Amino acid sequence: MAELVHMIDSEVFLAFSTYATIVILKMMLMAPMTAYFRFSRKAFANPEDTGLGKTAEERKKMLRSDPDVERVRRCHQNDLESIIPFVLIGLLYSLTGPDLQSALLLFRVFVGSRFCHTVSYVMPLPQPSRALSWLVGMVVTLCMAYRVLTTALHL
Amino acid sequence: MAELVHMIDSEVFLAFSTYATIVILKMMLMAPMTAYFRFSRKAFANPEDTGLGKTAEERKKMLRSDPDVERVRRCHQNDLESIIPFVLIGLLYSLTGPDLQSALLLFRVFVGSRFCHTVSYVMPLPQPSRALSWLVGMVVTLCMAYRVLTTALHL
Amino acid sequence: MAELVHMIDSEVFLAFSTYATIVILKMMLMAPMTAYFRFSRKAFANPEDTGLGKTAEERKKMLRSDPDVERVRRCHQNDLESIIPFVLIGLLYSLTGPDLQSALLLFRVFVGSRFCHTVSYVMPLPQPSRALSWLVGMVVTLCMAYRVLTTALHL
Repeated sequence: MAELVHMIDSEVFLAFSTYATIVILKMMLMAPMTAYFRFSRKAFANPEDTGLGKTAEERKKMLRSDPDVERVRRCHQNDLESIIPFVLIGLLYSLTGPDLQSALLLFRVFVGSRFCHTVSYVMPLPQPSRALSWLVGMVVTLCMAYRVLTTALHL
Repeated sequence: MAELVHMIDSEVFLAFSTYATIVILKMMLMAPMTAYFRFSRKAFANPEDTGLGKTAEERKKMLRSDPDVERVRRCHQNDLESIIPFVLIGLLYSLTGPDLQSALLLFRVFVGSRFCHTVSYVMPLPQPSRALSWLVGMVVTLCMAYRVLTTALHL
Repeated sequence: MAELVHMIDSEVFLAFSTYATIVILKMMLMAPMTAYFRFSRKAFANPEDTGLGKTAEERKKMLRSDPDVERVRRCHQNDLESIIPFVLIGLLYSLTGPDLQSALLLFRVFVGSRFCHTVSYVMPLPQPSRALSWLVGMVVTLCMAYRVLTTALHL
């Protein structure tokens, strides 16, 4: 991390920006997907969202939890728990001046693993497809964290 | 993104720092708000939090979920899902050297939309006020992501 | 924030990278801990995760919520709500050129407070240990936000 100023204007940082943005957009996609399932399953969390119901009774019935909606929400939650650490640690990692090929490999594997995770979760595919895709993403983030700690350690 | 080193010391980055900090502080405010509703509604999630109850029975009764508490928690969750992507993509966006006026417009609209979202959610105001304020924030983040991907693309 | 370019290659930024990485790793640890409790309590959220059950009935029984699992999940959620604001605001704070000793103090206190918070939550220790450790972390983040806003204000 001796030459941060130089590194920040590097291909690694451009690659990081690209993959981080793509994977954050994927995470943001879960919100409209939740909305889609809420409308198609007629399962809402807030009374003010049940305007589609005609009678008061019908509206009350729409205030329920639905397994498909909950599944998408759990997938979204897992994205928050996995993608945000990747982006934050990845930003620091990009500033440690890693080799471009290694960095690209890590970024690509992570983004791929998260798309696999979402498909495995929402379809759902049989286990261990979801567990493995989650694990691959975690390992990538741990690799980057290891490099940050070995390059920049200042306790 | 050719002149990152120059850009990081720019008015755009100062503006980003200001608006990002304000909107993160707003998000952090949801935690004490949840605590306030938990105490006023006497609805807690952990047995060790029910010290206010005098008898064991009274304490057990306080371990319940309350609609107002859940509403604030959903609002907090939506903040996590919307504000963190804004800050992360906004950071990369600020480094692409955008025009100061465009950047200020995007930052101001986003921060405004999130304050409207919180008011719409917690009051609650009738729909579509909450849906619209959420949508405006999403569009701002998508605009910034578009600029990052078109300026810095490196796959 | 006048000399960002200079500051980013500083000891403060190295210290920030170190402590931010450590506390994000702590947050990531909550996911395997949740998995551990799910397996030991046999309490899963998805039908495809109940492969350990031999009969269909046994598998259905494993689709339940367990107080210990929910406790770890609430702790993880609190990490998302507290640690991510710390890292985001801390990144901006590190770029404002603070004194190294002040910065180290804030980073160390925050990281310490979050480890205490996790222990208090998961054990659990009697209140107010969890409330206090949470509060200390919040105060650190507010201190850093105050410095960012007073140094970099550009509305």
